[in-house]
Amino acid sequence: MKLLITGGAGFVGARLARTLLARGTLAGRPIERVVLADQVAAPADLAAHPLVEGRISPLLAACEGLREEAFDGVFHLASAVSGECEADFDLGLRSNLDSTRALLDALRARTERGHAVTRLVFSSSVAVFGPDPAVPLPAVVADDTLPTPQTSYGTQKLICEQLIADYTRKGYLDGRAARLMTVTVRPGRPNGAASSFFSGIIREPLAGEEAILPVSPDVSHPVSSPQRTVEGLIAVYEASREAFVGRTALNLPALNVSVQQMLDALEKVAGPAVRARVKAQRDERIAGIVANWPKGATAARAKGLGLLPETSFEDIIRQYIADQASNPAALKGLK
Amino acid sequence: MKLLITGGAGFVGARLARTLLARGTLAGRPIERVVLADQVAAPADLAAHPLVEGRISPLLAACEGLREEAFDGVFHLASAVSGECEADFDLGLRSNLDSTRALLDALRARTERGHAVTRLVFSSSVAVFGPDPAVPLPAVVADDTLPTPQTSYGTQKLICEQLIADYTRKGYLDGRAARLMTVTVRPGRPNGAASSFFSGIIREPLAGEEAILPVSPDVSHPVSSPQRTVEGLIAVYEASREAFVGRTALNLPALNVSVQQMLDALEKVAGPAVRARVKAQRDERIAGIVANWPKGATAARAKGLGLLPETSFEDIIRQYIADQASNPAALKGLK
Repeated sequence: MKLLITGGAGFVGARLARTLLARGTLAGRPIERVVLADQVAAPADLAAHPLVEGRISPLLAACEGLREEAFDGVFHLASAVSGECEADFDLGLRSNLDSTRALLDALRARTERGHAVTRLVFSSSVAVFGPDPAVPLPAVVADDTLPTPQTSYGTQKLICEQLIADYTRKGYLDGRAARLMTVTVRPGRPNGAASSFFSGIIREPLAGEEAILPVSPDVSHPVSSPQRTVEGLIAVYEASREAFVGRTALNLPALNVSVQQMLDALEKVAGPAVRARVKAQRDERIAGIVANWPKGATAARAKGLGLLPETSFEDIIRQYIADQASNPAALKGLK
Repeated sequence: MKLLITGGAGFVGARLARTLLARGTLAGRPIERVVLADQVAAPADLAAHPLVEGRISPLLAACEGLREEAFDGVFHLASAVSGECEADFDLGLRSNLDSTRALLDALRARTERGHAVTRLVFSSSVAVFGPDPAVPLPAVVADDTLPTPQTSYGTQKLICEQLIADYTRKGYLDGRAARLMTVTVRPGRPNGAASSFFSGIIREPLAGEEAILPVSPDVSHPVSSPQRTVEGLIAVYEASREAFVGRTALNLPALNVSVQQMLDALEKVAGPAVRARVKAQRDERIAGIVANWPKGATAARAKGLGLLPETSFEDIIRQYIADQASNPAALKGLK
């Protein structure tokens, strides 16, 4: 089978590609080709893989060509992140809404010409949830909590969920939207996401650098490890329509954890010297965005697919340390 | 003040225009100009009114010009109806989604050039609600019921609600989305809406014609008279942001009534001979769409704005008969 991963050079996309290639099959079929579409080049290990093809272009520009090309399945992960969307409203609409619609229309055009329906997994986000004065946000959001997004990013993700549900209802594609929790610990540098610090306060101290904590330690948030997130996307792809249940987006599993618990876990795993590299320095812009996010999430439908959250944040830190075993710079703070 | 009504030549739009012109003021300011934008000509009485200007063009084409023109307020009612959107997917996306976004961007462009923020009331619809297997539809939908639309029309209305909330959050406009209940009794001919029969089973018998009832008499539905609907749109326009509460769409008031109760009311108001002109003839396409609609609605936030539903369907029929006093053909079945 031939798969497309949009945002395939990104952190989640590349890990998904590696996991799929290591498995060798998806939904019981051998994986013969993985196309990684992104605005940047795929990581070297993936670019060198014989089954992988990297394509560098804006997704919107690539979609016209997708009308002429058969894919059995698509993981649509490409997205401008929350901070970018708040800073540049048009960028968010173009990257997250127009690009998704162009992708859906390309897949639909194939179906309408008589080709098999393409299966698509869309990475929505816990950012669809937020407090509106008319609709207080529950402390813990469930699959069926009313989304009232408080960012452009969350709004655009919710709109894409709805478009995908309707294209699926019409039989144009077989779409499933899964809401990612905040994925942590992300390697590399901070990105434009307001949630970036959730990784930074672990990653930077482990690398021997100071990290800024821009919010109160009592901020609680639903998080997931990269590997658990990728496993969730694959399970959502492999689910039958009946097992997915309906066309509404589902939450992926979350470990609901406070920043204080994250810091305590860091101290437990890496010691007090590492923990001490996190400095509190409130950033009102980030604190304001994060204050509108849920404090936790449940994932009953994902559980029905056999998906469970991590049970401790220590495990998430240990996963990151194991991932970085071949990258001594990332762990030099541990020495 | 200068007002724009998109869909201003339509049934609700024209009635809104007449009501506004009769009032003479909106939100305490004198109405100096009412532009009725539509794909068809405005009714003659409105076209002849000295304060009215009719403009005939697709909304999408008109929006570029709106960037250069100041309006104090907009009632955005233009929409392809549910049956049309099911029959022509692209038409629905273009008429309901692309046109709305072009309108919002035109208003935003003015704000970004330093002009006053434009107030906008959007006519969303009870059609945003529907049953998804993962999220059973409550018998009666409330302001905060999770919308899981089961038609393209409902999907597009929900997406527009979300866009308007986000443009409002960003300060680009002052938008308020109000979900219209099924407006009945509509005069004239059946339109493409699956809900068309809710008017037809009253209107046609009163005109001396047979009407087809395509669903079971025990189908229950939230309805509102044209005048109550128009009053709702005006109250939502006039509300302060604080009184509107948040940015999430609200339900306009509904009378929750079964088709059987509608027919009983017709017999009570117009007699058994008129009632006997309604013939049951099930239409699976329409029955299938209607089966996915809510059986009733509540409107707590609208009540907070002083808006209440009708208390009997007889009153709604009597309003229609009074409206048609100068149109004997519409009432010839009463003789």
